[in-house]
Amino acid sequence: MTNQVYQLLEDYMLSCMGDSAHDKEHIYRVLYSALEIAKEERDVDYDILICACLLHDIGRREQFENPSLCHAQVGAEKAYRFLVEQGFAESFAAKVRHCILAHRYRSNNEPETVEAKILFDADKLDVTGAIGIARTLFYKGQVSEPLYNVDEEGRVQDGTVDTSPSFFQEYKFKLENIYSHFYTKKGAKMAQARRQAAVNYYESLLNEVRPIYERGRLELAKLRQE
Amino acid sequence: MTNQVYQLLEDYMLSCMGDSAHDKEHIYRVLYSALEIAKEERDVDYDILICACLLHDIGRREQFENPSLCHAQVGAEKAYRFLVEQGFAESFAAKVRHCILAHRYRSNNEPETVEAKILFDADKLDVTGAIGIARTLFYKGQVSEPLYNVDEEGRVQDGTVDTSPSFFQEYKFKLENIYSHFYTKKGAKMAQARRQAAVNYYESLLNEVRPIYERGRLELAKLRQE
Repeated sequence: MTNQVYQLLEDYMLSCMGDSAHDKEHIYRVLYSALEIAKEERDVDYDILICACLLHDIGRREQFENPSLCHAQVGAEKAYRFLVEQGFAESFAAKVRHCILAHRYRSNNEPETVEAKILFDADKLDVTGAIGIARTLFYKGQVSEPLYNVDEEGRVQDGTVDTSPSFFQEYKFKLENIYSHFYTKKGAKMAQARRQAAVNYYESLLNEVRPIYERGRLELAKLRQE
Repeated sequence: MTNQVYQLLEDYMLSCMGDSAHDKEHIYRVLYSALEIAKEERDVDYDILICACLLHDIGRREQFENPSLCHAQVGAEKAYRFLVEQGFAESFAAKVRHCILAHRYRSNNEPETVEAKILFDADKLDVTGAIGIARTLFYKGQVSEPLYNVDEEGRVQDGTVDTSPSFFQEYKFKLENIYSHFYTKKGAKMAQARRQAAVNYYESLLNEVRPIYERGRLELAKLRQE
C-alpha cells in the first residue's frame, strides 16, 4: 500500500470518527493486532486487511444515532461506496466490504476470507484482558450505568444473576466468555495471554466492595435504633 | 441514630444526587469504610460520622455546574443549613460542617476531629485499588478523555511525562501516589491492602497496548511504500 492510499483511508476513517480519541485508538489497536496475527497466517492480502481495519467502525455514528442500525452493515456499505468512488477496483471494494460486514458476530455473516477472520479476531481481542475492562468501564461512564447493582437487602450483586445493566453484569455475561471461538491460532493465543488480567481485576474489585457492604450494613443496623 | 433521622439524612443526600447511581454507591462505600475505620478509633461520635458521610458530597452538583466552586465548601454550608433548619443542635451541625469542609485535601482545611479524619480517609480509600481504577475510567468515559496519549511518532505514553489528560496520566500523577498520608492507621492499612491491584491493572494495560503499537508501527512502515 502506498503512503498516499494509506493517508486517504486514514483521513476518511478520522472524518467518520468525529473527535472521539477513544474510538480512534481502538482502530489503531485493531490494525496493529491484525498485523501481528497476519504474520502467522498464509496468503494475506495486506492491502485488503489494512483497508478493512481502518474502515471497520465507520458506521458507528449511524448506529449511535439510530440503534436499530447495525454498524457493521452500515460501515460495509459506506466503505464499498467510498472505495469505488475513489477509483479502487470493484473486486477490492467487495472484499473489504465482506471483512467489515463479518467483523461483528452474527450467525448469518461469518468471516470467510483470511482477512475477514483476522479483522474479526483483532477486533475481539480489544474486548479481552485489561483493555476490555478499560473500554467497558469507559462505556459504562459514558452511558451512566453503575459498576454493580445492589439488591433489596443492600448486598452487592456479582453480575451472575443481575437483571439490570452494570459493569459486573457485562463482565459475567460478556467479557468472561470471549476467550473461545477465535478464528486464528494467534488471535486465540494473544487473548489467552490477557485473560488473567481481566479475571484478577474483576475479583479485586468484587473483593474490595462486597465485604465492606456486608460488614457496613451489619454495623449500621446496630447503630440505627427504632 | 434513630431510623427516622437516618432516613431523613439519606433522603436529603439522594435528593442532592439526582439519578446518578454511581455517585450514590460512592456514598455508601464511604459510609461503610468509615464505620470499619471507626472501630479502631477512640471516642467516635457515630451520629456526627454517619451524618457527615451521608452528606459529604451534596455540593457536587454545584461544583459540576460551576467548576470555580469547591464541593467541600458548598456541601459543608448546605449541610449546616439543612441540619439547623431540621432542628439539630447548632454545635452538632457545626461539627458535621467541619468534617465535610475538611474531607477534600486543602492545606488550610485539615481535618481536626476524629470524625473528620475518618471521613477524609474513607473518602480517599475510594480512590485506591481496583475501585479507584474503576471510578477513574468511569469518569474518563464521562468526560471523553483518552485512556492514553500517543506521541508524534505514534508511541503510547505511559503517563509520566504526558502534557494532556489521560487515564495513564491520572494514574501516574494521582492514583499511584495516594497510599501515604492517611490520618488513621486502619485507613492506611486498608489502602495498602488494595495497592497491588491498582499497580497490576496499570501494568497489565500498559503491557497490552504498548508492545502492539511498537511492533505494529514497524510492521506498517514496512508495508507502506513511497
